[in-house]
Amino acid sequence: MTGEAHSQDVQGVMRDIGARARASAHALGLASTEAKNRALTSAAASIRARAPDIIAANARDLEAAEKAGATKANLDRLMLDEKRIEGVARGVEDIAALPDPVGRLLATFERPNGLRIERVATPLGVVGVIYESRPNVTADAGALCLKAGNAVILRGGSDSFHSSTLIHQCLVEGLRAANLPEAAIQLVPTRDRAAVGEMLRGLDGNIDVIVPRGGKSLVARVQDEARVPVFAHLEGIVHVYVDAAADLDMAKAILRNAKLRRTGICGAAETLLVDRAAATTHLAPLVKILLDEGCEVRGDDAVRAADPRATAATEADWSTEYLDAIISAKVVDGLDAAMDHIERYGSHHTDCIITQDEGRAERFLREVDSAIVLHNASTQFADGGEFGFGAEIGIATGRMHARGPVGLEQLTSFKYRVRGSGQLRP
Amino acid sequence: MTGEAHSQDVQGVMRDIGARARASAHALGLASTEAKNRALTSAAASIRARAPDIIAANARDLEAAEKAGATKANLDRLMLDEKRIEGVARGVEDIAALPDPVGRLLATFERPNGLRIERVATPLGVVGVIYESRPNVTADAGALCLKAGNAVILRGGSDSFHSSTLIHQCLVEGLRAANLPEAAIQLVPTRDRAAVGEMLRGLDGNIDVIVPRGGKSLVARVQDEARVPVFAHLEGIVHVYVDAAADLDMAKAILRNAKLRRTGICGAAETLLVDRAAATTHLAPLVKILLDEGCEVRGDDAVRAADPRATAATEADWSTEYLDAIISAKVVDGLDAAMDHIERYGSHHTDCIITQDEGRAERFLREVDSAIVLHNASTQFADGGEFGFGAEIGIATGRMHARGPVGLEQLTSFKYRVRGSGQLRP
Repeated sequence: MTGEAHSQDVQGVMRDIGARARASAHALGLASTEAKNRALTSAAASIRARAPDIIAANARDLEAAEKAGATKANLDRLMLDEKRIEGVARGVEDIAALPDPVGRLLATFERPNGLRIERVATPLGVVGVIYESRPNVTADAGALCLKAGNAVILRGGSDSFHSSTLIHQCLVEGLRAANLPEAAIQLVPTRDRAAVGEMLRGLDGNIDVIVPRGGKSLVARVQDEARVPVFAHLEGIVHVYVDAAADLDMAKAILRNAKLRRTGICGAAETLLVDRAAATTHLAPLVKILLDEGCEVRGDDAVRAADPRATAATEADWSTEYLDAIISAKVVDGLDAAMDHIERYGSHHTDCIITQDEGRAERFLREVDSAIVLHNASTQFADGGEFGFGAEIGIATGRMHARGPVGLEQLTSFKYRVRGSGQLRP
Repeated sequence: MTGEAHSQDVQGVMRDIGARARASAHALGLASTEAKNRALTSAAASIRARAPDIIAANARDLEAAEKAGATKANLDRLMLDEKRIEGVARGVEDIAALPDPVGRLLATFERPNGLRIERVATPLGVVGVIYESRPNVTADAGALCLKAGNAVILRGGSDSFHSSTLIHQCLVEGLRAANLPEAAIQLVPTRDRAAVGEMLRGLDGNIDVIVPRGGKSLVARVQDEARVPVFAHLEGIVHVYVDAAADLDMAKAILRNAKLRRTGICGAAETLLVDRAAATTHLAPLVKILLDEGCEVRGDDAVRAADPRATAATEADWSTEYLDAIISAKVVDGLDAAMDHIERYGSHHTDCIITQDEGRAERFLREVDSAIVLHNASTQFADGGEFGFGAEIGIATGRMHARGPVGLEQLTSFKYRVRGSGQLRP
């Protein structure tokens, strides 16, 4: 088992990884855009060149997962073929093409005494990424962190151990080609779960932020146990509120897209709220379009009266993220009741109002306290790519530092540069 | 002892305070600029009107502190007279006069599909402030948090319990006058130290960030124990590097100001680094100006050779924050050696280069990884007021969210508002 550390060494191995990451972070923060891009394009070339090796490694992972009784969905998430590997390589090149977030001038001001102050973007330092079966995260997360000048410690799922190891080798080849420190992108070389615990404790202060990518139980564990900041969302209990002044055709199209385009992503709608003032005209057609497409609707009395195929919602439904073709639905007494419901049951991820009334739309956009609030557009736009960030490492619902899609900008910090000509403080 | 809770109730009292803060935060985040400013100007008026009561309460605090053997410096920090109370009231009015940071448009972009996306500033939520003897922090921190739309939980030093209680009453009168929730600014009503522990555990998720204001032991305890983000700096090991190309007169003036204007603040210089190439011309005059003004100089051999009044520095001196009329001093082999020294011994707070060489200045500004890096200006400018932030709640050396002076801007978070016209995700 190539290079896999023995269980008893885990703490030592991890501490060493942390120390090497920190030692490389300073040089990485000062690396030129050209060097970082060279590393990324070289890595993409390696990924393409070594596709057969990656597929062979992936076959080992798939075989082991199948033996262990993985579900079909899990096997599909794990599987890499020529086409997917090409997608991974192109994703790395896309990140090379994004503007360098380091050194951006965030603010500039001159003081009455002539001091010129600039706030400039700097890297965060060392990012820890803990993810589950998709091996492509190895490349995505490694490339994003590198472009933002951060060292990264990747802890992939044990399922994808061999695939991730190969992809990681390609990233290191890219770093080498650009003369950047190899410790800039490290993959934890053991499947021992104790490694995750070590990362959550911060590796002696050598991890600045942790990004978990995976299911709710992984995120919950990371949020509970991490002693360092975490960029994440636990769940997306996403609401679509159809106001009395909604255009019915638009509401139907948006609701269908928001719920059913892909049901397993965090921006998928989970609860439909319909204004009582529009219930007679809008409720039945909205519920019908979902039911007709095979979506289960769990509703209150009004919803069940509108379409008898709807089943009864329980209190638990209002705070359930189905990630499936199921929706909870309810009639509410206008905008304030809708916002109260969202405040009470929501997860501050993404929420949407559909209305032609600008005043109510503006109130919703102002007052709903979620990372992303939308007016007349599908909640499935909750995505860094759709926001134009080029790529994202995840979506955060915390209020500190990063919120919404976490792209290159949120993977940076800042500092102040002050230029004087001998100024003394009075 | 008015309203002071009994020790055994502390957990219950604190949980209740947390719940009330959270319950008020939503309304506070939506409060108009006018309402917040009315609360602040009314609070300032109350502080002025109740100055005699505040002085009487302060007398009780002073008496108790004297009995407990407080130092003269501590008693001075604690003392409030007419003039200082006027300063406190004016500080609150100054914060009312600052622009409202909530609702600021931080970025705006339109996507090819016509979605218009805005990033707008929102409050952080609930801020916990833990401070020591200066009772004026009650007003400063309360006012800053209110202006940024945050609820705040203030835990003042036990020394200033009665003074802070009176000042807090004035802030609450201001909230009442503006019809804002009284729980927006709460003062912990007990001197029991267990209350601090409760705050550090986050009061059931009802504190979003903690700001410690006080000495190193307080900050160290908060950083060690807090389970929520902390805006703070542990210490300011501030360097002044005098380059070969420094103008000697400027270097003398800046060094004198940086070290001696006030020795007890975090932006005070603690270490002088002199380029070996300038040692024969610059070192003796720089050391002399400090020694002549009564500053102790602890130096390496070159420094002691330059002026026999200098004593020998030990290894510990390079990482000591004196906060006193003492400086460590050393000759280094040029810019790179200076930056290496700063990286090794510094605290990433504030560091300065003095040089007429633009190239070296730019390298220093780019490569030194501190919250504030200065060229040809005194390090004592490390202050939110001097940066034009109007006021600051502290200076942070962390890399997440807030760094450098923490003013109104850093007391906010953000969210994305997305305006569409029926867009569906393909």
